[in-house]
Amino acid sequence: MNKRMILYILAMLLLIEAAFMLLPLAAGLIYAERASIYFVYTIVGTAAVGALLLIFAKPKNKNIYAKEGLLTVALGWIVMSLAGAAPFALSGEIPSYLDAVFETVSGFTTTGSSILANSEELSRCMLFWRSFSHWIGGMGILVFMLTIMHMEGGQGMHLLRAESPGPSVSKMVPRMVDSSKILYGIYIALTIIEVGFYMAGGMPLFDSLCNAFGTAGTGGFSIKAASMGAYSRYAQTVTTVFMALFGINFSIYFFMLRKKFDLVYKNTEIRWYLVILLSSILLVTINTLSMYPRAGDALHHAAFSVTSIMTTTGYCTVDFYYWPEFSKVILVLLMFVGACAGSTGGGIKVSRIVILVRAAATDIRKLVHPHTVKVVRIDGKTVSQDAVRAVEGYFILYVLIAAVSCLIVSFDNFDGSTTLTAVMATFNNIGPGLGKVGPTGNYAMFSPLSKIVLCFDMLFGRLEIYPMLILMLPRTWFKRI
Amino acid sequence: MNKRMILYILAMLLLIEAAFMLLPLAAGLIYAERASIYFVYTIVGTAAVGALLLIFAKPKNKNIYAKEGLLTVALGWIVMSLAGAAPFALSGEIPSYLDAVFETVSGFTTTGSSILANSEELSRCMLFWRSFSHWIGGMGILVFMLTIMHMEGGQGMHLLRAESPGPSVSKMVPRMVDSSKILYGIYIALTIIEVGFYMAGGMPLFDSLCNAFGTAGTGGFSIKAASMGAYSRYAQTVTTVFMALFGINFSIYFFMLRKKFDLVYKNTEIRWYLVILLSSILLVTINTLSMYPRAGDALHHAAFSVTSIMTTTGYCTVDFYYWPEFSKVILVLLMFVGACAGSTGGGIKVSRIVILVRAAATDIRKLVHPHTVKVVRIDGKTVSQDAVRAVEGYFILYVLIAAVSCLIVSFDNFDGSTTLTAVMATFNNIGPGLGKVGPTGNYAMFSPLSKIVLCFDMLFGRLEIYPMLILMLPRTWFKRI
Repeated sequence: MNKRMILYILAMLLLIEAAFMLLPLAAGLIYAERASIYFVYTIVGTAAVGALLLIFAKPKNKNIYAKEGLLTVALGWIVMSLAGAAPFALSGEIPSYLDAVFETVSGFTTTGSSILANSEELSRCMLFWRSFSHWIGGMGILVFMLTIMHMEGGQGMHLLRAESPGPSVSKMVPRMVDSSKILYGIYIALTIIEVGFYMAGGMPLFDSLCNAFGTAGTGGFSIKAASMGAYSRYAQTVTTVFMALFGINFSIYFFMLRKKFDLVYKNTEIRWYLVILLSSILLVTINTLSMYPRAGDALHHAAFSVTSIMTTTGYCTVDFYYWPEFSKVILVLLMFVGACAGSTGGGIKVSRIVILVRAAATDIRKLVHPHTVKVVRIDGKTVSQDAVRAVEGYFILYVLIAAVSCLIVSFDNFDGSTTLTAVMATFNNIGPGLGKVGPTGNYAMFSPLSKIVLCFDMLFGRLEIYPMLILMLPRTWFKRI
Repeated sequence: MNKRMILYILAMLLLIEAAFMLLPLAAGLIYAERASIYFVYTIVGTAAVGALLLIFAKPKNKNIYAKEGLLTVALGWIVMSLAGAAPFALSGEIPSYLDAVFETVSGFTTTGSSILANSEELSRCMLFWRSFSHWIGGMGILVFMLTIMHMEGGQGMHLLRAESPGPSVSKMVPRMVDSSKILYGIYIALTIIEVGFYMAGGMPLFDSLCNAFGTAGTGGFSIKAASMGAYSRYAQTVTTVFMALFGINFSIYFFMLRKKFDLVYKNTEIRWYLVILLSSILLVTINTLSMYPRAGDALHHAAFSVTSIMTTTGYCTVDFYYWPEFSKVILVLLMFVGACAGSTGGGIKVSRIVILVRAAATDIRKLVHPHTVKVVRIDGKTVSQDAVRAVEGYFILYVLIAAVSCLIVSFDNFDGSTTLTAVMATFNNIGPGLGKVGPTGNYAMFSPLSKIVLCFDMLFGRLEIYPMLILMLPRTWFKRI
């Protein structure tokens, strides 16, 4: 294992994180907040540790392999979260360091589960950092590192693959650095457009930025206790549209920019994504019609909540805990499905669901016609048996991890709905669940053990299981490999 | 499609069912119950339809293929249930025919979910038939037919494979008729031993028979409103032991009879079954210690409930709805696991779980050592990639069916716990769930639509998805195949 190279990358990550923290520091200075000083401390500390590591861990060679790539990503995200939690804990605005870590992991993994009863009690620089962590985590900090470090060849691809959501990373252009630059370009552009729409509706710049960060990363931390319910109908609609946009595979935007519309039309995942999203909105609207004075209200809240849950953002306008059971089952099922691969959203991902459903359909067809060879096709291309096996294997692991998590969290003895949806909402990087962790609740009441488990679930979800699994395998640490 | 042969088999099934109904008729005559007359009507009607079918559907050839085998089994179970529901409905003891069908499907599929608030209101002949249906369904009525009809070759094997629970039917002896005779022999012997143990503890013969039928089939219908809670501690312990015994793969008993103890020791499934069962009992005992005056009580009820749920029997001594959440999560997870393949129990089956877990472990090992070839092994033998794919495909279908069922049942707008566990308890052929369908509740309050869906779930569960799926595929009916 190339330990020096791993340390080198971790050092770079810390330096980049320190640089990113200049933004909340700036916000704090603009609003002349005393809490700004804790960002100074953290930036200095983080940068110092990063610089020291960089000096002592000069790598002899820069080669890293698939397994080391996975391990590096897992370690990187943990180190980032431990450092990123410092301002919250140092300032005492989140008194417990574990809670601060929970909040930061929730930020970077774009989950949006909070331990805060009222986010409005935080100072503005803290709120900015909290929302900004969504934005950083959405596209991935390692991807960002790659775009500025010009790492090329195998090592970069291994890192990118480990951090990107979805079953496969399609290199959009031959050079990977270009791919990640294009991704970040689209990401920044969409975020700026959203901020523009918010401000056009009269939202202050600070709020516009924070809300756009939360949408872009499909995170869901809100700077208001009432989440998106604190804003106008217009702002909510803008959020709905942009949540849906950030749940789409970013390569679709790339194809559009290149005017390759045939590739957009042929794309299976985007079609399924839109069909699932729109039909769920329709069903929930019909199901909740009687709860709202006008049909338009039902449609508005259904569209917001369904999009928020499916894209795993987690913003709220209403407490859907009081919706009829049918709507709640739809929301819970959408929690599992999640957004498109290659978007900033979490969950199992639509493309994996497509493969699972088509593999099941193929199995059924084989029953009827045992002697014909049937294959799974996506976008007109055959999916190899190995790829189908990989997705099915992923799904099994997903279920096993969810089951073990539920078992541990159930020690806290909350009701079944709370236990199950707390695990699902963190594992799928959504944020709110049902019951005590619903839109009006929070995660503060869990025991330290449960909070740690839920932190791991968030990381398992965001990094798609394997990096964290490698990290937790004893043989990664105790055997020469 | 050999329609005549299918009709021929259905006709035979009806005749056998009519013969089986002579037993509840006898029970009714012994107790001089007026309700006995409805068994006379049903027996005459069922036998007449069976005889007519037999005359008109004389098959030209007796060949049936895999797909027709699956279809026949699905149709057979539905026809059996529709006929078997007649006495309940004709007598008016279950006024609605749909409810009567639900109760009969629940009986044959060894589920034990009841629409009755108080089973003690039924006459004894009805109670006998209800419990006896568990016993018939446990081993499978087609298996019984094969043992008496001397069907040989492919057609018999196709039927046996479609009706037997578990991923693979291992022929224990070269001739299949002999295999099924041995299976039924073990089944009858174990049932008689259980009756003996009950009677030794002072339980009346009628109760002993009904309770043994429910245990042997891992069904769970009780003739008492308080389920097994109405009997002595001794009777409950006997039930615990026999539930565990009937959850074991019957080939284990065959190996024991043949003194092939090495095959028993080498058996992976039985080891996992016992480890899961005993460790769950231990965990639940510790978790519920504070709820009972003595540790022995906690152990007693934990052993009973865990065994009852894991073997998918569904007898109760206590309402585990009031247990701590951790114990409830264990029970819900055990609902999915189920008993051993080749037993009378339902669920996903321990052997499939072993394959899923080992396939996941292999996937993880591949991550660490990408270049070594890793295979899944069970009982020291390699499981083919196709077999692993088949089990994973089964699991995906299982999840999809459960999701769709939850969605439809949620229309009734009961709480999430009730909706989810009603589907899980029927689909896994357990009986009681949590909430309104818990040990003290019943299934009467569901809408007709939900009852039909839950009936299908019970059949999907007992016949392991594929036969029912073939039945429901439009192309089975509307295309020449």
